[in-house]
Amino acid sequence: MKHPKQTPLVESLPASVPFVGPEALERTRNATFTARLGANESVFGPAPSVLEVIKAALSEAWMYGDPESFELRHALAAHLSIAPDEVVVGEGIDGLLGYVVRIFVAEGDAVVTSEGAYPTFNYHVAGFGGNLVSIPYRDDKEDIDGLVAAATAANAKMVYLSNPDNPMGSWHSADAIAAMIEALPEGCLLLLDEAYVEFAPDEAVMPVDTCDPRVIRMRTFSKAHGMAGMRVGYAFGHKDNVRAFEKIRNHFGMNRISQAAALAALKAPDWVAHVKTEVEAARARIGDVARAHGLEPLPSATNFVTIDCGADGDYARAVLNALVERGVFVRMPFAAPGNRCIRVSAGKPADLDLLEAALPKALAAAKNG
Amino acid sequence: MKHPKQTPLVESLPASVPFVGPEALERTRNATFTARLGANESVFGPAPSVLEVIKAALSEAWMYGDPESFELRHALAAHLSIAPDEVVVGEGIDGLLGYVVRIFVAEGDAVVTSEGAYPTFNYHVAGFGGNLVSIPYRDDKEDIDGLVAAATAANAKMVYLSNPDNPMGSWHSADAIAAMIEALPEGCLLLLDEAYVEFAPDEAVMPVDTCDPRVIRMRTFSKAHGMAGMRVGYAFGHKDNVRAFEKIRNHFGMNRISQAAALAALKAPDWVAHVKTEVEAARARIGDVARAHGLEPLPSATNFVTIDCGADGDYARAVLNALVERGVFVRMPFAAPGNRCIRVSAGKPADLDLLEAALPKALAAAKNG
Repeated sequence: MKHPKQTPLVESLPASVPFVGPEALERTRNATFTARLGANESVFGPAPSVLEVIKAALSEAWMYGDPESFELRHALAAHLSIAPDEVVVGEGIDGLLGYVVRIFVAEGDAVVTSEGAYPTFNYHVAGFGGNLVSIPYRDDKEDIDGLVAAATAANAKMVYLSNPDNPMGSWHSADAIAAMIEALPEGCLLLLDEAYVEFAPDEAVMPVDTCDPRVIRMRTFSKAHGMAGMRVGYAFGHKDNVRAFEKIRNHFGMNRISQAAALAALKAPDWVAHVKTEVEAARARIGDVARAHGLEPLPSATNFVTIDCGADGDYARAVLNALVERGVFVRMPFAAPGNRCIRVSAGKPADLDLLEAALPKALAAAKNG
Repeated sequence: MKHPKQTPLVESLPASVPFVGPEALERTRNATFTARLGANESVFGPAPSVLEVIKAALSEAWMYGDPESFELRHALAAHLSIAPDEVVVGEGIDGLLGYVVRIFVAEGDAVVTSEGAYPTFNYHVAGFGGNLVSIPYRDDKEDIDGLVAAATAANAKMVYLSNPDNPMGSWHSADAIAAMIEALPEGCLLLLDEAYVEFAPDEAVMPVDTCDPRVIRMRTFSKAHGMAGMRVGYAFGHKDNVRAFEKIRNHFGMNRISQAAALAALKAPDWVAHVKTEVEAARARIGDVARAHGLEPLPSATNFVTIDCGADGDYARAVLNALVERGVFVRMPFAAPGNRCIRVSAGKPADLDLLEAALPKALAAAKNG
């Protein structure tokens, strides 16, 4: 009985997950985490008004979502002061990253990113047969000059940049990114992941300009809006680029309840302001906790703090493991030099109490390990 | 300013939607539908226990869903009496269809389906560069012999069959499908879409056999479970085939609330039994309404009734348009000979009252149009 053959490309791919979820870690340790601070989710959740809208929308759970996400797309367009055909809604940024790679990256095409940047992007590039070129971070920032040089050398189709950056929390100015776009080789697309944009200083946020076909920007309801579990992201840019998503996206992929929730979230800017205040307080406290134990918190324009553990990747990994063993879920950058750090999401005071209690024990365990 | 180039394949695709959603039709007519009977959704909705679970799960909306859908996948495996690595959960059957085509269909590969069968499958085949061969329905059923002959002639990588069938409502016996699998050319995969399986007679449902690598079966929570808006489907079969999904799927694509809802729905078999009873009553009434106006309802093993309007496609289209104008959303098969019919989903009594009132007017309008 002959097995159906996978395409040569899919056959060549590893059956790997971009990264293991906290639930898998919980199953391994046979206990739930008492503080979930590893996935840069927003522990503050969605706005109360969003939860009310979700409950009301449950009477429509039996209906497919509008394949055009018409209302949400129009609301986003108004929010961004662009036209509705300059924005596309998708199943989180993860889903949109898959689409954008599929649109622009053919097998063998070069794609450039930073070493240790978002693994799901790398997963999609590999999944469509792109050749990934990775440039190390410099001074804990994505190395714009290095990315441009690599894109030029490889004649890359696409460069990935997250601003503010995950996993380092650092950021570049809007001017620096605008200059980067000018410096990229002709025909190269900048994929600008702005998942953390709501937490960024104004000077880090480029003006919205959908006339420029050289950049596609992506944002999400998973971070500041507290809706990671609902899976709503959006991409915006030149309408020719946005239209390409229509050719390949899963038109009936959007959850109807999530569409309603995202629409409600857009109408709750006060909640985002509240979350930003809470996140600032949490970042300050995480920094204090880190410093109290001789660690250095890096500056952050996101809802997490990346903490320099002061030694190598093995040591940071030991600290992380010791925190995880104590029920505090955190993550760490995947590649040197960032992997001397651990990454801690902004938590509620009770979460940070647990972090504060666990950190000295984890450090002691890592030193003695 | 040079635009980034799409891949030659994506460049060649039309910016088309598989089919227009009812919300778009509502926007065009500037009025909502009073009866939504066109998308084979379940107007009976999810079980009350599912709605309670959703409300409770809202406190976790801020967390990403488990990328492994561990609990749901294990519950589905138990439900099917298979191993957990023989089933994969995805963003509805639509999403899973995209994945399965991507896994097995390389550019230029032949794929066989029925003419007028599920357009989203065709969309994905085109989207990955497959060459679609379409075989007309025979006696309002998918033509198994014709599909096998076409697959053999084209050395197809994949054949699509829905059983029970959408849009005709017809079905084949399990024995006929088992024989079809044996008759397919070596290396050809049968993609068996069982979206409507809960409504099928026992003799139409093949035993679950995950030892056979020649077939992948797909089921959904969108129909009998009343959760179309929540986007949960699953595929099951030989573990080598299932493992391939792990290489390319959007691991963080699942909505956390939907995962919890589907798990709860599996624990509510009484609700599915209730829905089946309601659907049977609705089918009988739709048949009576059709016959009362000289139309012929086709036998159905689904949650809809396909009604032969007794003339050609133009006439059926006129009847459909006249129903839609009167606020009754229905659809029709896309291709001859099925397009002499309209397709009406099982509704609640109030929905069917509206159908009953609108149908004679629609028929009169179509005759005079």
